Amino acid sequence: MQQTLSRRMVLTALLAGTGMASSAFAQSRSDDPLPSWNDGSAKRAIIDFVARVTRETSADFVPVPARIATFDNDGTLWAEQPIYVQYAFAIDRVKTLASKHPHWKHTPPFKAVLEGDHKALAAMGEKELLTIMTVTHTDMTTDDFTKSVNDWIATARHPRFDRPYTDLTYQPMIELLGYLRANGFKTFVVSGGGVEFMRPWVERVYGIPPEQVIGSSGVTKFQLRPDRKTVLWKEARVEFIDDGPGKPVGINRFIGRRPIFAFGNSDGDLQMLQWTADGGGARFMALLHHTDGEREWAYSRQSHVGKLDRALDEAKVRGWTVVDMKRDWRTVFRFQDATVGAR
Amino acid sequence: MQQTLSRRMVLTALLAGTGMASSAFAQSRSDDPLPSWNDGSAKRAIIDFVARVTRETSADFVPVPARIATFDNDGTLWAEQPIYVQYAFAIDRVKTLASKHPHWKHTPPFKAVLEGDHKALAAMGEKELLTIMTVTHTDMTTDDFTKSVNDWIATARHPRFDRPYTDLTYQPMIELLGYLRANGFKTFVVSGGGVEFMRPWVERVYGIPPEQVIGSSGVTKFQLRPDRKTVLWKEARVEFIDDGPGKPVGINRFIGRRPIFAFGNSDGDLQMLQWTADGGGARFMALLHHTDGEREWAYSRQSHVGKLDRALDEAKVRGWTVVDMKRDWRTVFRFQDATVGAR
Repeated sequence: MQQTLSRRMVLTALLAGTGMASSAFAQSRSDDPLPSWNDGSAKRAIIDFVARVTRETSADFVPVPARIATFDNDGTLWAEQPIYVQYAFAIDRVKTLASKHPHWKHTPPFKAVLEGDHKALAAMGEKELLTIMTVTHTDMTTDDFTKSVNDWIATARHPRFDRPYTDLTYQPMIELLGYLRANGFKTFVVSGGGVEFMRPWVERVYGIPPEQVIGSSGVTKFQLRPDRKTVLWKEARVEFIDDGPGKPVGINRFIGRRPIFAFGNSDGDLQMLQWTADGGGARFMALLHHTDGEREWAYSRQSHVGKLDRALDEAKVRGWTVVDMKRDWRTVFRFQDATVGAR
Repeated sequence: MQQTLSRRMVLTALLAGTGMASSAFAQSRSDDPLPSWNDGSAKRAIIDFVARVTRETSADFVPVPARIATFDNDGTLWAEQPIYVQYAFAIDRVKTLASKHPHWKHTPPFKAVLEGDHKALAAMGEKELLTIMTVTHTDMTTDDFTKSVNDWIATARHPRFDRPYTDLTYQPMIELLGYLRANGFKTFVVSGGGVEFMRPWVERVYGIPPEQVIGSSGVTKFQLRPDRKTVLWKEARVEFIDDGPGKPVGINRFIGRRPIFAFGNSDGDLQMLQWTADGGGARFMALLHHTDGEREWAYSRQSHVGKLDRALDEAKVRGWTVVDMKRDWRTVFRFQDATVGAR
């Protein structure tokens, strides 16, 4: 039950979004393609794999069109604590929209949001979360939703770091995305988060265009209005949940071939890694283990957000790469580079 | 009712697939990027549009990432007569599978298929078509379905031309796809046909990778089998119909931004063209009008397959480009080039 609830929360509450300036892609220290990664088995495994699949004389050579790399977003490309960023967006939207809905002040679950009742927020069940996601994400055009995301992401600040959420992207992962692309890979986001929440900012932040973002989605309907204006209307119905077993389904639907490289951080990524591993030929599967409570957060098996339990066991059994954030990353966030990161 | 039935047939029966050798992309006569197009208003409109959106000093300049071009498949990139190619595939599959289902000999709608009863086949309703599509497209893994498509497309021959279906792609459209890509466009197929039916051959034939193919789809489910092998299982449920108003929905879901260039040939493409036209800035919308009964087929307003009626009226009112196959194309199919095409 708790399991199911968490999964559903990952589905509904969950979407992600933020990032770093494009200059982050350009960063490199001398010839090291991954300067924010400490030398160690994880970094070596990545570089060895890329060398093996790109060297034409290698037995593991993979032609460019088949170099498909998929990345989870929340907790893999940017921080997902203390709550999924998309949920933070939804909470702020409730506050913005409240002036048009005076009765929310007295009505759960809006009351808890408006009063900043963290205890009540944390205890929310699936139904309450769905209500909050519905009023903030549906019954509007896709253009209006995109505008609300753009407005928010430009101004909202993370509660712990007091920085734009797009600063909470992981510098080592930004480097990894660029390194793979420089080696002929096509990089995709495959997230349980809402695709419409990610697309407005992923190109600027990750260098990944909207058409390479796969995520959860609601039903949209085409409308030709009397003035001949065309819109897509976001209905209050879930269409696709790109999480857990939904990730291979989403990959097949949107990409149409198996990745050779997949990177996640939670049990919601397990099936994506299984699907990737089972493709035959050289494959790279990795999990980010959040072990750094000082620079980021330390959590795994017991965490409500980003629970990493079964997938961690399977990674150990099958020899997948487990990245230990504290040990393997020289820098976590770019803004920490001069302080914590430069030690 | 007939309208609805036709639409549903476009949904279920419809999927497409065939093409030309990659050498077709390379063809060019001197400096003409579109040698298989006769000089005329259609060809000039294409070249003028591409010049306007790619010249940096132009008021209509569009940056490379936003140069999204979408193409219908059946009747736009390859022939759809006398029946959708995917339906021809399904009929052949019924014949192949019949040995395992002896009772089909006596059971409609299989009886008509096995006896080659063209009259009964033509009179089939939605339910019968769905039955045929279901037994040939579902209740198997995606890998097995892909194999059945690859096997068929390599051997099946078009009844009129006695050539592989992939030879029934339009040489002028192959040139147009290459011309757009050479000018920084990203080309997508947006078809009512089944996405899993197209992806096995579109890259070879159109130069369009699987991840840039949008189509109708059924529900698939991820399975981790006892031997740890992972499969995606095709269930007998329609998930998404990428036709008519579904095309803008599919474009939004898969691409996440509006095309600036869209090309179709039937009423099923009308909403894609409306959605494209309404995006603001320079836009190019075109319809292929099948007017050449000698080299291809002549059909439009009354046709059961590929009906072009409302969209033709709207194109005329709104000034969209209507390509007249007989007048505007020097060559239709590459294999005709030395005969009809060279006149």
